[in-house]
Amino acid sequence: MIRVAVAGASGYMGAELLRLLLRHPEVELTAVTSDRLSGEPLAAAYPHLRGLTTLAFHALEAEWLAGVADVVFLALPHLESQKVVPVLRRHRVKAIDLSADYRLRDPNDYVTWYKAAHLDSQGLGEAVYGLPELHRKSIAAASLVASPGCYPVGAILATAPLLKSGLARLEGIVVDGKSGVSGAGAQGRKADPMYLYTEANENVQAYGITTHRHTPEIEQELSALAGSPVRVSFTPHLVPLNRGLFTTASVPLASTLSTVELVSVYRDFYAGEPFVRVLGEGERPTTRAVIGSNFCDVTVVSDPRTGRATCVSAIDNLGKGGSANGVQNLNIVYGWSERTGLDAPPVYP
Amino acid sequence: MIRVAVAGASGYMGAELLRLLLRHPEVELTAVTSDRLSGEPLAAAYPHLRGLTTLAFHALEAEWLAGVADVVFLALPHLESQKVVPVLRRHRVKAIDLSADYRLRDPNDYVTWYKAAHLDSQGLGEAVYGLPELHRKSIAAASLVASPGCYPVGAILATAPLLKSGLARLEGIVVDGKSGVSGAGAQGRKADPMYLYTEANENVQAYGITTHRHTPEIEQELSALAGSPVRVSFTPHLVPLNRGLFTTASVPLASTLSTVELVSVYRDFYAGEPFVRVLGEGERPTTRAVIGSNFCDVTVVSDPRTGRATCVSAIDNLGKGGSANGVQNLNIVYGWSERTGLDAPPVYP
Amino acid sequence: MIRVAVAGASGYMGAELLRLLLRHPEVELTAVTSDRLSGEPLAAAYPHLRGLTTLAFHALEAEWLAGVADVVFLALPHLESQKVVPVLRRHRVKAIDLSADYRLRDPNDYVTWYKAAHLDSQGLGEAVYGLPELHRKSIAAASLVASPGCYPVGAILATAPLLKSGLARLEGIVVDGKSGVSGAGAQGRKADPMYLYTEANENVQAYGITTHRHTPEIEQELSALAGSPVRVSFTPHLVPLNRGLFTTASVPLASTLSTVELVSVYRDFYAGEPFVRVLGEGERPTTRAVIGSNFCDVTVVSDPRTGRATCVSAIDNLGKGGSANGVQNLNIVYGWSERTGLDAPPVYP
Amino acid sequence: MIRVAVAGASGYMGAELLRLLLRHPEVELTAVTSDRLSGEPLAAAYPHLRGLTTLAFHALEAEWLAGVADVVFLALPHLESQKVVPVLRRHRVKAIDLSADYRLRDPNDYVTWYKAAHLDSQGLGEAVYGLPELHRKSIAAASLVASPGCYPVGAILATAPLLKSGLARLEGIVVDGKSGVSGAGAQGRKADPMYLYTEANENVQAYGITTHRHTPEIEQELSALAGSPVRVSFTPHLVPLNRGLFTTASVPLASTLSTVELVSVYRDFYAGEPFVRVLGEGERPTTRAVIGSNFCDVTVVSDPRTGRATCVSAIDNLGKGGSANGVQNLNIVYGWSERTGLDAPPVYP
Repeated sequence: MIRVAVAGASGYMGAELLRLLLRHPEVELTAVTSDRLSGEPLAAAYPHLRGLTTLAFHALEAEWLAGVADVVFLALPHLESQKVVPVLRRHRVKAIDLSADYRLRDPNDYVTWYKAAHLDSQGLGEAVYGLPELHRKSIAAASLVASPGCYPVGAILATAPLLKSGLARLEGIVVDGKSGVSGAGAQGRKADPMYLYTEANENVQAYGITTHRHTPEIEQELSALAGSPVRVSFTPHLVPLNRGLFTTASVPLASTLSTVELVSVYRDFYAGEPFVRVLGEGERPTTRAVIGSNFCDVTVVSDPRTGRATCVSAIDNLGKGGSANGVQNLNIVYGWSERTGLDAPPVYP
Repeated sequence: MIRVAVAGASGYMGAELLRLLLRHPEVELTAVTSDRLSGEPLAAAYPHLRGLTTLAFHALEAEWLAGVADVVFLALPHLESQKVVPVLRRHRVKAIDLSADYRLRDPNDYVTWYKAAHLDSQGLGEAVYGLPELHRKSIAAASLVASPGCYPVGAILATAPLLKSGLARLEGIVVDGKSGVSGAGAQGRKADPMYLYTEANENVQAYGITTHRHTPEIEQELSALAGSPVRVSFTPHLVPLNRGLFTTASVPLASTLSTVELVSVYRDFYAGEPFVRVLGEGERPTTRAVIGSNFCDVTVVSDPRTGRATCVSAIDNLGKGGSANGVQNLNIVYGWSERTGLDAPPVYP
Repeated sequence: MIRVAVAGASGYMGAELLRLLLRHPEVELTAVTSDRLSGEPLAAAYPHLRGLTTLAFHALEAEWLAGVADVVFLALPHLESQKVVPVLRRHRVKAIDLSADYRLRDPNDYVTWYKAAHLDSQGLGEAVYGLPELHRKSIAAASLVASPGCYPVGAILATAPLLKSGLARLEGIVVDGKSGVSGAGAQGRKADPMYLYTEANENVQAYGITTHRHTPEIEQELSALAGSPVRVSFTPHLVPLNRGLFTTASVPLASTLSTVELVSVYRDFYAGEPFVRVLGEGERPTTRAVIGSNFCDVTVVSDPRTGRATCVSAIDNLGKGGSANGVQNLNIVYGWSERTGLDAPPVYP
Repeated sequence: MIRVAVAGASGYMGAELLRLLLRHPEVELTAVTSDRLSGEPLAAAYPHLRGLTTLAFHALEAEWLAGVADVVFLALPHLESQKVVPVLRRHRVKAIDLSADYRLRDPNDYVTWYKAAHLDSQGLGEAVYGLPELHRKSIAAASLVASPGCYPVGAILATAPLLKSGLARLEGIVVDGKSGVSGAGAQGRKADPMYLYTEANENVQAYGITTHRHTPEIEQELSALAGSPVRVSFTPHLVPLNRGLFTTASVPLASTLSTVELVSVYRDFYAGEPFVRVLGEGERPTTRAVIGSNFCDVTVVSDPRTGRATCVSAIDNLGKGGSANGVQNLNIVYGWSERTGLDAPPVYP
């Protein structure tokens, strides 16, 4: 059994990791940290885990963590992970980071988007972007995996086949993301008034318009796929869901193709992927169909009137958009079947 | 007192008209039709109206309607209104049509998008598109007003200032609409499984991708504003709200302008409008803030990185996106203050 | 025009008062207080009020308030109202208190349930319990009205006819209340994790089991109706609604009566009431039918198997359960029609 | 591998069985029936199951079923199961019935509550009521298990320790149940307007007042526990949840006991139960904490003021209130660990 720890488990992303790791057949959960909840049993903070674990939260001490785990998931706020990861790596402990700290290749992007220089340039240089559909081989060899953000997973998986195949024109790509509220509290169940039931219920709004920090992450991966710089106009939205993230991308096409032809390109691109389900003409992804799972449902529709393709994807922001995708990375790193611990069907309804 | 009737009041759009008209100080509600509910008291179908009216539903008979009302709101399915309107007009009864039947100027568009030739070309030729912010003067003189669809209201009000001012480039406009579920059942509380609580709750999905019938309506009005043909890539979404419609439009800019400059263009364009609230830099529209009202909250953000503007608007799909906007048209037609009967603040929370 | 102020308007109860008072034809809203938001325009805290008022929040200063208003609504936390009311009364300003501070006749009850002695025994002695259906005449003559709590309104209106008529046995009454989340934040949009969207959504729970402070208020009024002490077993619940409060009471019957007979007793008891709608056999109250209004829908069903009646009522916790009921009290105090400013039909759907 | 079939899988209860059985390590799902969906792949009706099974729905033919399965779950409407079960039993195929058809011991109860004589009195005589916490030994020996209704599970588990221990007085028990909407469509995703999103959202209502068919089931089991006839006053409610069922029972006590003493009685009664979690003083069950699982969280509070205990429980109506409890019965019948296939923690948030 591999010993696994979760650093920063007081938020929803951490909670979802606990849910998945507690029944993962190849690992033993040995430590869970939260400075705020230090000393409390997990089941006190998470009543759904009553009876399922006797672990208690431990304060975040990197050296201690390195001694009790073979691999550590980090669900810390950004800027915090990069303080812990170097310690873990010095002790040859593997790290799967769910924060933004190791996702961007260009250190300058951290200055631009996060207003802070990166503290661990060596780690940054060795980290692998943890989207298996694009970087499976590198992940398998990695000791530091930077699991992607929820919006980037939705946006990249929705459009990757078009960019990789050269079918997309690279200017004028527009991405619209709609996320459930657990995405907002991923690093802590934040009691911001905006996230109160009475405020978020029966409400839809855009936020971070033109400035959301997931933008450079989307652009980095799409640029790599296209082999040429790509800029996207990205707008995230908060919608009244606990879980779920729906992405709608409008991509200009380099030539006229039918929906059937485009779907065929997607089917080829995702052939053999255990967690991407390409839907055919007339089928429509819904977040409902992926809740609680690591699936990404995706399809594409051609619009000859505008010369564009409409690409849509549905994920669980805590699933493929976060913790479950992190567990898929774990499986790849250790050479287990990618479905290990991720075989529970989505929860419906 | 002007005598008002509602034709087709078994759906949510009709129900909202009843709510507004029952307390409109200048009108008397004299007739309400529904073939399905004919003979039933309104309060039996609409328990919220218990004690507020003794009217009963009447079967839809156009000649009879013409005798009991000075003006008729039609909340019928498309293709049905055009059978009733000619009868009303022959009797010099005014009509405010909430269906799609008189919105498109070009009869060919009905063949293309609705798969049916229009039956009342004379009416179509005289109808005025009932968006007061664009056509106030024509509405004031009209006897037949074609009240716009919910998505077009959101999309047009979000982008009109850019198109009218020549600041937009006309190619590559992308519009993403998110509607509450009452929009889907506007012409009848349809018991389609897709609209079941268990299916629509905790779910987001796109539908009508590249084919939604509100597309030509958006394009017609934006083209008129721009003075040149405009095509939009439009994707509607169903989100778990009873009421509310949020629109995010991405518009390429002809030149680089700051957010402050763009907001100023919007403020000028909507100066004096009683129901459009232009939000400034850093403020964000939310559907929460307009529920139950005729308000449209709108703002615009410049994105120099992509050379685009992100334009967002929030309306109540049954309010400014439907029935309340219809009542504003009524007020204009009769020369009353446009706020008459529409002065109740939005419902919060 | 009567000058009206709202003391403590940073919570949902205060917000609802603003919504109602801004369009009440007989009053002018002259002052709104919130220590936390002092100096901010109302529209900054309440985006739905943009364009509807230019008022700003003022710090809570009782002497100042007394100079700018003829009547003051207090939507303060309990224990705070009793500090302000004596000042207002010294200046002969009327007060309609939405807090719990003047609801209980017996000062000892404050010690028992609120763990604090009452500071204004004179005010307490003169205050009238502001439930018009029971105390209309006293309210009309009152200068200090203690508007009831949301659960008591639901529980009392559901059962009053049985207790007043002597049809109820007084032992073994069980009351189960289900409230929307705005009830919890009535005195401030509290950012307690329990009220986060992600926690309250898709969740039902009981709270304050056997200890909720609305219990003595229910018992006081039911005892007065019965002419003999009544104890109730009361359990409040939090359900995922923004607005709405549903009450289910089980009352043992002194003799066997049919549902039709019981409904008839209710119809007699509430004859002429403008805001209580008694539903007949086979009709069922729903919170949906009263949202945004001052209505209470109520019915009763006999259960010969158990010798009990099941009494159910539906209100909007911010409407008849709070602010709208407060406005009804205002109308009574000033001798206006009780429907003044409360004539908007419920919002549906 | 045991061969398992699901008869009647077009509703939510059947869908949840599929979710659980597809990853149950001891069984192979060999057949799924639905007359309405016959011939369709499961994944067409249930998009969440895309890629997880290649099975298609088969028409309901009892003889055919008997040939392809060792044990059949029936999620049919009541009155339908009793036509299929005798055929299965003739072929020595075991049956776990999720309908009401074999739950009531007294055939007369079917005439009274279901308005129809029972067609299979032999089966009825041999069926075991499938609540493991009360009837584990009988279930282990049974070939026909009548899995209980959702409300009865919540009501019985909330109160059983008080009735079994003699601490309860038997007259005046009041039970209030609040169910998510999937409970209503358990035997078919019914497109009744009452279950539309727009109608069920932001709405709470009671239904089946004094007449709900789960009443005799609750009374049968509580009477058996008490050793004396028990009548309950039961009121079910529809609340806006997809999943979840919360029960609040008020039980008169025979003598005065503290909450601590009562909780201790509960802890003893449920000692060793794998799926009942007894919460201590100050802890509160929530449906949130059990979603997607077979857990029942339960606690009890003493109210010396009224001489009653308030007993509350939280379950997932499709979990412990239905399909997951059915799988627990399966595990007992075959002698597997009761947690087999039921080990996934609840989904949070």
